[in-house]
Amino acid sequence: MAEPLTVSPDDHQGPHGYISNKDDYLKRLRRIEGQARGLQGMVTDDKYCIDILTQVSAMTSALQSVALGLLDDHLNHCVRDAAAAGGEEADAKIREASAAIARLVRS
Amino acid sequence: MAEPLTVSPDDHQGPHGYISNKDDYLKRLRRIEGQARGLQGMVTDDKYCIDILTQVSAMTSALQSVALGLLDDHLNHCVRDAAAAGGEEADAKIREASAAIARLVRS
Amino acid sequence: MAEPLTVSPDDHQGPHGYISNKDDYLKRLRRIEGQARGLQGMVTDDKYCIDILTQVSAMTSALQSVALGLLDDHLNHCVRDAAAAGGEEADAKIREASAAIARLVRS
Amino acid sequence: MAEPLTVSPDDHQGPHGYISNKDDYLKRLRRIEGQARGLQGMVTDDKYCIDILTQVSAMTSALQSVALGLLDDHLNHCVRDAAAAGGEEADAKIREASAAIARLVRS
Repeated sequence: MAEPLTVSPDDHQGPHGYISNKDDYLKRLRRIEGQARGLQGMVTDDKYCIDILTQVSAMTSALQSVALGLLDDHLNHCVRDAAAAGGEEADAKIREASAAIARLVRS
Repeated sequence: MAEPLTVSPDDHQGPHGYISNKDDYLKRLRRIEGQARGLQGMVTDDKYCIDILTQVSAMTSALQSVALGLLDDHLNHCVRDAAAAGGEEADAKIREASAAIARLVRS
Repeated sequence: MAEPLTVSPDDHQGPHGYISNKDDYLKRLRRIEGQARGLQGMVTDDKYCIDILTQVSAMTSALQSVALGLLDDHLNHCVRDAAAAGGEEADAKIREASAAIARLVRS
Repeated sequence: MAEPLTVSPDDHQGPHGYISNKDDYLKRLRRIEGQARGLQGMVTDDKYCIDILTQVSAMTSALQSVALGLLDDHLNHCVRDAAAAGGEEADAKIREASAAIARLVRS
């Protein structure tokens, strides 16, 4: 991260800078974007449904892996900092993380 | 589907033409591709991790929904036709569908 | 299966007899029941949360595996027979199977 | 919890006492155990496969809900305390929580 991290932990609009390896995430998301384009080509070309489904499963796994990485970064930065600070902010961050985990588990 | 369906059910290379509503799938996949691009923007702009995760969950749900639609089309065409024909081909199609379902459930 | 299969495929109350290996399913479900009892012991004894979660994940995987086996049996018997018979019954069975698959993928 | 919590946070054998509402978890786990027994009855009685699968999906959701509750308790106690203490212990607890979350998401 080039810029100093001066934002408060609950400023949801501005830069957060807690992502451990932005270039790696961007590379993975570009690959996922390519998979979405590839799926359109497969549908257009009437590819075999099972082959399309295999690609969808691979893309879902890649997305989940991005989500788990981001969540780990989040626990290691926002949640850890809030827990160290304690009080209301810690409660709020943990509640928010639990809700995000529930959405991931159920999606 | 305008063109007649002359391919054999196990021709995995050629056109299959069993997809019920290609334009609808293509529209949904383009939206998913847009979500993948949106996620790259969120990472680049250091958006709040929880907000990124919410988008990932939405995108995963959209992908699952595409997969379930394709699987339903597949059961309604390839598996149904193979089951009606019977024999080895029916066994193979059902085995293949079960394996695809297992990948979806576990991904 | 000892008894002849004389029920109609849409009789949801009576015996169906399509389950390929009942003893195997019963053994797996008894093990799952034992896991549920084991989890109660872990909670009572204040075992470490992460260890409890590991057991819950193992139990969820075991349940999913039972579900995928039953679904494969279902495709191989009820859906295949209905598809061979054709018509309304085939439509209904496939619609029902797709709904069950969607519940599994989303649960 | 009546007894004082004198164990170190990484003692995985002894009492942890961080579970917010033991009676509630035990009640839910007993219900899940009952569902596992109910499934055995359904298989024994050759109940309709789709009805069995519906019960398996309900049981999987109940299990996931227990897991998400335990994980929330874990974040609110072990992870929060370790993060407040900082250092190696915080790193280890967060790494461990992330791994448990990954197992849940993928199971």
